[in-house]
Amino acid sequence: MKLQVTQENLAKALGIVGRVANTRGTLPILSNIALRTVDNRLSIEATNLDIAITQAIGSKVETMGAITVPARLMQDFISSLPGGVISLELDEHRLKITTDKYQSVINGTSFEEFPVMPAIAKGTSWTMVAQKMKQALSQVLIAASSDEARPTLTGVYLHVIDGKLYAVATDSYRLAERELTASKSDLSLLVPASAIHELIRVIGDSQDEIEITSDEQQVLFQTGDIKLVTRLIEGKYPDYRKLIPQKFETVATVNRSDFINITKVSSLFARESAGSITITADADKGEISIRSIASQLGENTSTATATISGGGDITLNSRYLLDALQAMNGEEVEFCFNGKLEPSELKDPKNKEYIHIIMPLKS
Amino acid sequence: MKLQVTQENLAKALGIVGRVANTRGTLPILSNIALRTVDNRLSIEATNLDIAITQAIGSKVETMGAITVPARLMQDFISSLPGGVISLELDEHRLKITTDKYQSVINGTSFEEFPVMPAIAKGTSWTMVAQKMKQALSQVLIAASSDEARPTLTGVYLHVIDGKLYAVATDSYRLAERELTASKSDLSLLVPASAIHELIRVIGDSQDEIEITSDEQQVLFQTGDIKLVTRLIEGKYPDYRKLIPQKFETVATVNRSDFINITKVSSLFARESAGSITITADADKGEISIRSIASQLGENTSTATATISGGGDITLNSRYLLDALQAMNGEEVEFCFNGKLEPSELKDPKNKEYIHIIMPLKS
Repeated sequence: MKLQVTQENLAKALGIVGRVANTRGTLPILSNIALRTVDNRLSIEATNLDIAITQAIGSKVETMGAITVPARLMQDFISSLPGGVISLELDEHRLKITTDKYQSVINGTSFEEFPVMPAIAKGTSWTMVAQKMKQALSQVLIAASSDEARPTLTGVYLHVIDGKLYAVATDSYRLAERELTASKSDLSLLVPASAIHELIRVIGDSQDEIEITSDEQQVLFQTGDIKLVTRLIEGKYPDYRKLIPQKFETVATVNRSDFINITKVSSLFARESAGSITITADADKGEISIRSIASQLGENTSTATATISGGGDITLNSRYLLDALQAMNGEEVEFCFNGKLEPSELKDPKNKEYIHIIMPLKS
Repeated sequence: MKLQVTQENLAKALGIVGRVANTRGTLPILSNIALRTVDNRLSIEATNLDIAITQAIGSKVETMGAITVPARLMQDFISSLPGGVISLELDEHRLKITTDKYQSVINGTSFEEFPVMPAIAKGTSWTMVAQKMKQALSQVLIAASSDEARPTLTGVYLHVIDGKLYAVATDSYRLAERELTASKSDLSLLVPASAIHELIRVIGDSQDEIEITSDEQQVLFQTGDIKLVTRLIEGKYPDYRKLIPQKFETVATVNRSDFINITKVSSLFARESAGSITITADADKGEISIRSIASQLGENTSTATATISGGGDITLNSRYLLDALQAMNGEEVEFCFNGKLEPSELKDPKNKEYIHIIMPLKS
């Protein structure tokens, strides 16, 4: 292998790909990134066996070849070099990296030992705007569980109902659902939340389309030069739609940034009580108030003006409420509930593509 | 106590003062900050028994009083409130904090239990520009030791030689000395590095003068409304001047930012060898080069153009070299050494107020 690339392209690709390389795992090869020539490009690849990310960058290839090198050292080293042309040349397992002022050798490991993810042979494909997918997945990802004891809840579920594709996640205490796009398929994919997390990072500020190709075991996301493949989670996703109340007794419309502020302040006094805050909607006063009590430290009541129909109070986890409010985009938020025992719902009154459900705490 | 302050002033003062309050200590009162009326102002105070910081802010005082409250909750709470007027009112040990939309109670502890640092009765005083002091102390602080086994080396030493006041710190592997100002006194203060660290933070971007008042046990730094008092370290500071070589065989003048870059890159390959890098000055080539070897990972040689008299090589700790280069200001740096066994020196060829000495490693 002998080739030239620019420092800018290589550093950027290593930044995108390198994060899935794992230095703490049991298999040393997984802490390496693979470099290999593919046609007249340099392909940079990393995997943790669940997820693989690949980026191909433009390159002046003199001789073909492939090697793996320690990801962290390679990434730190290339990102520290000045901009301009870098020569890479392989001498057995030694990768020589040369610029005008810098001469380095990084000891590598044979590419043959590197676990390459199987290709998706016969999959179905669809596309959407990458930024729209990124925003939608970010809104639901926060509700996914990190509890490995219930693997299905550690995924983001992509599925079609009545010709519309939805993304959904729930940890059983809260649930977020977002409409993605129209779809004629009967797609049903349960993607690990960790892969969605990487996908959001990989999309970055890409203005491209994203192409999604899946079979029974895997899904491939491809945008520009970057590919992310992940295994799917097996199992049946819960029938979550039946948990979402069809109507609400109390509906409060509140300025979202006011709601965020009073929730933040209240949460400071809710640390002792595992985040428990009580929200009261008062139609006559035209305000919602949040009350939190820390027996040792003190107590707080914060209020915000609101347009209210109905009235009453509900006790929620302040962190879940804050996560939901921060995941939304609109200027206003519609906060709906049915007394103290049923789930509450948050959505943008002007755009109902996104709903967020939070289960109440006992108060 | 009943008074009004602005959220902006109170939040800023809590940010400056609150950091010395310690929530992990054995004495619970030290995790509190004290609030007390002093004339028509509100004084905010915190201490860790070694250091005390006090700031007085403008206030509309209706009734006098004093209380202590948990520093972290108070700071988080006040900084989360919107700007504008805040009312503070004491009801026994309960501090009521009220704004238009927020009503809180924070449970406090009696001011009588708060340890107030003794005043400096008969001290000597001098002043200098706060920003100049901040910059000078930042340059020497990095060389102070954190090893409590040799307490004198954990301080920054302020002392007068031949009518000039110097600040100096050394951990015995490196030494930084900075000239501060002309002085007719025979001042000699050994200030804990931790206090200097807080002082630098407290000075912030203050455009005021700073007044320094000291007696045998303590020193008070006062700038604007803020006072920082710290105990002094007892003991005799080493006669460090005799360690500084009087002349050098090799002098290399290098662009400082080039020198930083090649040191950073070299340090990546020096992780296995505890940061050990070898710097070679070659007068004929007109360049310095840095070589580092990681037996497992690989090796690197980086070069930068330089104007050199003499020549040779020396092995240093890359972190110490990087710290020194980053503490300097000039465009160029003069790097001087006498073979492999004697201390090396770095300074700005145009401004010799600051010198930095680094002991060599065995190579």
